[in-house]
Amino acid sequence: MFFNLIPKEFNFFDLFEKQVSYAVEAAAAFKELTAKGKIDEQGIERIRSIEHQGDDVAHTIIDQLNKTFITPFDREDIHALAKELDDVIDMINTIVNRMMVYKITNVNKNLVAFASAIEESVQAVACMVKAMRNMKNAKAISESCVEINRLENVGDTMRDKVLAELFDTEKNPIEVIKWKEIYQDSETVLDICEDVAHVVSSIMVKQA
Amino acid sequence: MFFNLIPKEFNFFDLFEKQVSYAVEAAAAFKELTAKGKIDEQGIERIRSIEHQGDDVAHTIIDQLNKTFITPFDREDIHALAKELDDVIDMINTIVNRMMVYKITNVNKNLVAFASAIEESVQAVACMVKAMRNMKNAKAISESCVEINRLENVGDTMRDKVLAELFDTEKNPIEVIKWKEIYQDSETVLDICEDVAHVVSSIMVKQA
Amino acid sequence: MFFNLIPKEFNFFDLFEKQVSYAVEAAAAFKELTAKGKIDEQGIERIRSIEHQGDDVAHTIIDQLNKTFITPFDREDIHALAKELDDVIDMINTIVNRMMVYKITNVNKNLVAFASAIEESVQAVACMVKAMRNMKNAKAISESCVEINRLENVGDTMRDKVLAELFDTEKNPIEVIKWKEIYQDSETVLDICEDVAHVVSSIMVKQA
Repeated sequence: MFFNLIPKEFNFFDLFEKQVSYAVEAAAAFKELTAKGKIDEQGIERIRSIEHQGDDVAHTIIDQLNKTFITPFDREDIHALAKELDDVIDMINTIVNRMMVYKITNVNKNLVAFASAIEESVQAVACMVKAMRNMKNAKAISESCVEINRLENVGDTMRDKVLAELFDTEKNPIEVIKWKEIYQDSETVLDICEDVAHVVSSIMVKQA
Repeated sequence: MFFNLIPKEFNFFDLFEKQVSYAVEAAAAFKELTAKGKIDEQGIERIRSIEHQGDDVAHTIIDQLNKTFITPFDREDIHALAKELDDVIDMINTIVNRMMVYKITNVNKNLVAFASAIEESVQAVACMVKAMRNMKNAKAISESCVEINRLENVGDTMRDKVLAELFDTEKNPIEVIKWKEIYQDSETVLDICEDVAHVVSSIMVKQA
Repeated sequence: MFFNLIPKEFNFFDLFEKQVSYAVEAAAAFKELTAKGKIDEQGIERIRSIEHQGDDVAHTIIDQLNKTFITPFDREDIHALAKELDDVIDMINTIVNRMMVYKITNVNKNLVAFASAIEESVQAVACMVKAMRNMKNAKAISESCVEINRLENVGDTMRDKVLAELFDTEKNPIEVIKWKEIYQDSETVLDICEDVAHVVSSIMVKQA
């Protein structure tokens, strides 16, 4: 097997940009689905296909990482970044997959609000990942990071509010089980975005 | 404390083989239990005892790792492999422990199917771990890896199917809570097997 | 950005002591809350504020780590320790937050027992972290580690017992959902304390 002794930095940046573009696509598709007020087979299939494509890029990054001797930043940061971005897409896919399994087809306003926050956060994540190419973008990165943290807090508050409401008003325990999980997963997407932000911030600090 | 400056590679390979043999034993015991159609005290005790023995090997690996200066492959890969193999055994133990806590003694056909897939996947994991000793086994490793990925996909589909069925047919919410968790944990064993496969693949690529 | 080439070891020790002191404070506040038999707004607010302060220390540690070239022990161990200690405090905060969301105000004897075990374990964690400053404390560290492992086993047994009881006696599925999560989270705090103990043990072995 051939070891690349010359750093092909551009490669990692390109791959991460590609990977994050799938996260953006998944978040946009999820927002669209909820905006339509209906989770349909076609929408679920679309997100599943985005997830597969994102998976392929993640595998390519790990393969490249294992075969490359010199990397643009710490190996474990590259690994963590690929994994966290993969987790963002996975979790969005998990949510719509669960809705299909649970035969939930009608979307409520809470899920619309979550989908909106998720899309905003994933957009900010994409800004951070793209800005990594150039240390001059430190300010843009730091602003995106603040925005992602803000949206994570918004998500926490939303989750607490909608769960309290769910336990107060929903008398069917089966529905409680289903929606509790969907709301918690939605909030988890925002948590993972924050994890991505931390990885990117760490990388930038080390490069400084 | 004595630092081993001479790599005792055989040691790690022996220890990992021993650890994976406990995973195989746990998966076989779980399959046997489900095949009998009844979760009994004796079967639960057996799996718990396997889990304790697996735990001991995991601790030995980490201790060795901390005391050894030169290792046959990256320290973090050794750590990850020991942890993931431990997680496989742990999760099988968690499933039967939950069944005991939930006083579920009768096994259904879905659990039999999961136990079967788990046993196949853990067998493939054992092949991968044993093949690590020799780079000439790259093909066998790659084939096991494909098989483990296939079984993880099988598990995803099974989980979605049985959960959909559970929510469709089970009217007792308490039963839904219990079985939902058991099915999800079963699928998680297959996920962890896939994580093991990724760690072993990474190790092989780096050694190439 | 300025890189510190001279190890400022004391800094990390001071920061970890500060971080673990917030874990101790959170565990004590949780125990007090349960001892009062009532989860009130003031108590929840207090734990939330401790969690914020703990968060700040964790961020300071990661920032320092990223900016420091030479560290008193392995970078990944510092990272892991900061993360696990943060998780201890987070999980205690999660429990009381859930109780607020679920409008559970009355504490039962099971939660009192968990809070007690958690406080003991976090105290032992604090001993370990403080003892890290000096290799001569190896014996004290090892004793705390044994104690934390013992409490984790106690927690496992407690969780199994109270869950079995819950599923046996509670006929309201919504209550089962709420309490199952609270008991499982309580046991998770003890798991995370054990994770901290493992990280500290690894650090000590490597330093030996």
